[in-house]
Amino acid sequence: MTERQELRELVAPEDAREAIAAFEAPDRVVTIPVESASGRVLAEPITAPIDVPGFDRAAMDGYAVRATDTTGAGETHLVELSISGSLAAGQQPAGHLEPETAIEIATGAVLPPGADAVVKVERTERRGETVAVEQAVPPGTNVAPAGSDVAAGDRTLSGGTRLAPRTLGLLSAIGRETVPVRARPDVGVISTGAELVAPGTDLDHAAGQIYDVNETTLSSAVRAAGAKPVPYGTVEDDEDAIRETVQRAADACDLVLTSGSTSAGSGDMLYRIVAEDGELSVHGVAIKPGKPTVVGRYDGTPLVGLPGYPVSALSIFRLLVAPTLRRWTGTDRDTKTVDARLAVEERYAEGRHRALPVGLIRDGADELLAYPVDRGSGATTSLAYADGVVEMAADTRVLSAGEAVTVERFSTADRPPALLAVGESDPGFAAAIAGIDATRYRTIGARGGARWLRDGIADVAVLTGDTDREDGQTLATWTREWGLVRSADAADVESIEELAVGDYRLVNRDRESGLRAAFDAVIDERSDPEALRDAIDGYDVAVPGVESPARRVARGDADVGLGLRSTASDLGLAFLPLGTQRVRAVAATDRTGKSGVASLVRTLDDASFLAGLDGYASD
Amino acid sequence: MTERQELRELVAPEDAREAIAAFEAPDRVVTIPVESASGRVLAEPITAPIDVPGFDRAAMDGYAVRATDTTGAGETHLVELSISGSLAAGQQPAGHLEPETAIEIATGAVLPPGADAVVKVERTERRGETVAVEQAVPPGTNVAPAGSDVAAGDRTLSGGTRLAPRTLGLLSAIGRETVPVRARPDVGVISTGAELVAPGTDLDHAAGQIYDVNETTLSSAVRAAGAKPVPYGTVEDDEDAIRETVQRAADACDLVLTSGSTSAGSGDMLYRIVAEDGELSVHGVAIKPGKPTVVGRYDGTPLVGLPGYPVSALSIFRLLVAPTLRRWTGTDRDTKTVDARLAVEERYAEGRHRALPVGLIRDGADELLAYPVDRGSGATTSLAYADGVVEMAADTRVLSAGEAVTVERFSTADRPPALLAVGESDPGFAAAIAGIDATRYRTIGARGGARWLRDGIADVAVLTGDTDREDGQTLATWTREWGLVRSADAADVESIEELAVGDYRLVNRDRESGLRAAFDAVIDERSDPEALRDAIDGYDVAVPGVESPARRVARGDADVGLGLRSTASDLGLAFLPLGTQRVRAVAATDRTGKSGVASLVRTLDDASFLAGLDGYASD
Repeated sequence: MTERQELRELVAPEDAREAIAAFEAPDRVVTIPVESASGRVLAEPITAPIDVPGFDRAAMDGYAVRATDTTGAGETHLVELSISGSLAAGQQPAGHLEPETAIEIATGAVLPPGADAVVKVERTERRGETVAVEQAVPPGTNVAPAGSDVAAGDRTLSGGTRLAPRTLGLLSAIGRETVPVRARPDVGVISTGAELVAPGTDLDHAAGQIYDVNETTLSSAVRAAGAKPVPYGTVEDDEDAIRETVQRAADACDLVLTSGSTSAGSGDMLYRIVAEDGELSVHGVAIKPGKPTVVGRYDGTPLVGLPGYPVSALSIFRLLVAPTLRRWTGTDRDTKTVDARLAVEERYAEGRHRALPVGLIRDGADELLAYPVDRGSGATTSLAYADGVVEMAADTRVLSAGEAVTVERFSTADRPPALLAVGESDPGFAAAIAGIDATRYRTIGARGGARWLRDGIADVAVLTGDTDREDGQTLATWTREWGLVRSADAADVESIEELAVGDYRLVNRDRESGLRAAFDAVIDERSDPEALRDAIDGYDVAVPGVESPARRVARGDADVGLGLRSTASDLGLAFLPLGTQRVRAVAATDRTGKSGVASLVRTLDDASFLAGLDGYASD
Repeated sequence: MTERQELRELVAPEDAREAIAAFEAPDRVVTIPVESASGRVLAEPITAPIDVPGFDRAAMDGYAVRATDTTGAGETHLVELSISGSLAAGQQPAGHLEPETAIEIATGAVLPPGADAVVKVERTERRGETVAVEQAVPPGTNVAPAGSDVAAGDRTLSGGTRLAPRTLGLLSAIGRETVPVRARPDVGVISTGAELVAPGTDLDHAAGQIYDVNETTLSSAVRAAGAKPVPYGTVEDDEDAIRETVQRAADACDLVLTSGSTSAGSGDMLYRIVAEDGELSVHGVAIKPGKPTVVGRYDGTPLVGLPGYPVSALSIFRLLVAPTLRRWTGTDRDTKTVDARLAVEERYAEGRHRALPVGLIRDGADELLAYPVDRGSGATTSLAYADGVVEMAADTRVLSAGEAVTVERFSTADRPPALLAVGESDPGFAAAIAGIDATRYRTIGARGGARWLRDGIADVAVLTGDTDREDGQTLATWTREWGLVRSADAADVESIEELAVGDYRLVNRDRESGLRAAFDAVIDERSDPEALRDAIDGYDVAVPGVESPARRVARGDADVGLGLRSTASDLGLAFLPLGTQRVRAVAATDRTGKSGVASLVRTLDDASFLAGLDGYASD
């Protein structure tokens, strides 16, 4: 590790946003087909080269006449004209309309030379080869003159117009196949970090590799802001490698976005590259998450160095960069604020401007509740399970439960889930909701489920144990067999005591889980529980996720894992049963009327949802 | 023309919308790259195949230690450990951490075997080859265990989730390159009408050809509703041709949209095809515009027959079809209602549900005004120049000026123009605003400009004549030379009298235009103005558009046209000057503070905007 660099003076988020807003918009023009131009911004004014229509057009079905021939006509004085032909739309008149004749004409057809009005069919009576007209019409009646829709030479659309179906229709009407629009800005996206691997390839867990998330999230966020992402892949956090990639991106793009290598721990490499070879305007923003943000230029090209954590990178992009891209591209902000009540109290010691990610759920009275979902900015999930953010000023230290908050939704298309289930990770419950759309199942353990039910957040809690709860309505219960998932090396382990005695390594579940509670309850029945726990190698190695211990066993990182029979079967591992545990789905009393809960009830009523799950039984 | 068919019983718009909503959504699944999946709807639940992270990870920069080695450490009791190495993110630990040693570790790096906690760097002091620890840490401190972000086996996303950057990030985090999403419905788009020609090809005006607008507008509206338009081009309104194309589209698509051939005048062909060969559910909707709408199936495939007029087709699509496509595709409605005041009174005799297209403009107090823009549903421009619609119930007969109305904007991205200019079509004024973004210039003639100024709609009116107006502030005046644009055949015409005497055909401007007013004023000075007018062949042939008469001359449809010297020069035609007319740009008194007006003032202050316009002079 290089010497630690401290961030220079932090700037306010507004100042960082303004530094980015000061970058000049690219002004390239591209000519594209009209049919694909919706949402694009017209680069120059469009003048109509032709009249629309290009001819005097019948505006009604009826008879083309000379207006003077109808003089005096009325309901009591029919004027009879001989019919000399008929004209449909798209048909060329055969000749001049002679006096005292009429030509049958359809809406949209060319008014024949000689005619100057149309009597609509409702005011006529057909009599074989003649027509009786019951209305006197002045010249021009029911005729749309050439150019009446669009006149040649008229400037039809201004530069800067954001094109939409209806304006594209106008371009079609004047015969345009292509249209000059402002080019989408090219935004280079570079992820830095030796640990990053592109999704789709294999991971080396032992070497600490993880999949790169930022290229995906930033590229799609760039696209949502109307610009064009240009991917540069992942680069090791090596100064020369980053410099080379930044240079390539700066040569080709209108804006370069990097993520990572901005913190003191990574040697603040990006800051040094920009400070040494470019122009630095911002180094550090007074916001959480996202402090180590860099704004500047490299080789003249605007550059924003985002933090490496996915949540921080995306939040800072949305807050500071997206407004400028949207302005450059004439793209609407795909967000909307909604009012909600905060479900639980939030307290902060530190006085820093915050963007608090929250989930949204409708309570029984159909009112919106917001609940914090932050699992630490390193977690990919904290944004994925959030529906929006609540902005909090630096001086806000407490938000009380029930307090009214304004939530900026991430997308106008997002809707709160139809069903928010929280609690024990249980394959049986997962099977129950697999067929229900727009559900969210947060597996934070049975204890967490009970808390979220009590706090009025969860629609349904997934709990373990035999006790009914007073703050909810049990929809169904079932049982699952649990025990120890064993590797081939641990085939001899036939009891907890043998596990403690032998040279085996256990992977446990975390204390929030009902599975761990069941395991501890069994140990507590032994004569000296504490000694037994101390003797088990790995008893304190607790992992989240119902399958995680078994997967560690499967890949040889441990000999024995706490888990379910169903998981052991799925992974083809041996299993030592230690007990059977009851699982219950409990609906919050005020949410039983929600459609998502109703769908769940229907599924739970039919015990077939447990089919195929080894060790499961319906009650 | 075939025998006229009357529409059957009209159904209410809600019933037609429901008939379309009853069509079953297609349920095909396509697997696409994660990077292009933003906005798509997940077809099935996604379960995490791996733990994220896949290893116990340092959550802070600092030193990996055995927690027991830090027992008793504090600010007054430093515990010194020897440093046995360092680990960066993405680096594989070389071996086990021995007791009473520490390994320098970066955030994101793998916790080395043997270590169970991280002391953050701020609580340590480096002393060459050793580190002094000033904090006792329990096991697990500053460690993110494997699976703490996403646990293997967890159902991470529910089917029906609309994917966004943050959820795509979650898919990347678990290593997905592709994702199963619901296929976009294929929507066949067929335009019918013998008069229709695809944009980009030449038009035969004499045969009454016009460019097809509906394929462009409907295709982009289909795309905006999240579905995939499949173009079938234009088809003559011939029953066999339509039947054949509808059959091909029905074979290949999830929904078929036709436009045209639905009215009595066109033989109601579409109705007959559907009624004879398919299933008809709706024939005629009680709405204006859009009455002749057909809903049914052809060969089992859902079909909606839209009216042929572009405005009607797009309005009916938006009102009746788009909601179902958006529901099928999980697409958000790209509209938003805004409150506005109606600028002028609207009256209706007929009691029919209406969608009134309106423009929006901000007045001097920054309040929104809505003004009707309908030029008749045949006009392409009426939608292009509208910003939204006001829905009016069938029993509403009058909307007063100043009345509060709710405007459903066509798109959330639309903004009222920065400058709304209304009045005389003048190439000089067009040149002045050519460089100003987001202007709208409605050339409805000097008379109309005066009306819109008086009604408080226009920001700026373009007027003709020498008189200042009390209800506005003149920003600039200039003069233009006007007269008669002559074909080679009319080279002899040297006066209005010669025009009247000879065998020449004139094309005049409409009475709303200031050009026509100037022409009439000159004629009125002659000894017998009425006789002179009567003697001019084509005096009553009045067309809209400042260039339209000259263009008719250019293409041989007339001998002489009323027009400007600048137009004659542009088109290379001879010109007989008859006078010089003053043009003035007059700002509404309350709008002089608007930014668009300020931009205009800057341009007008510099007389160079008239450069290159023959016959123009600044005052």
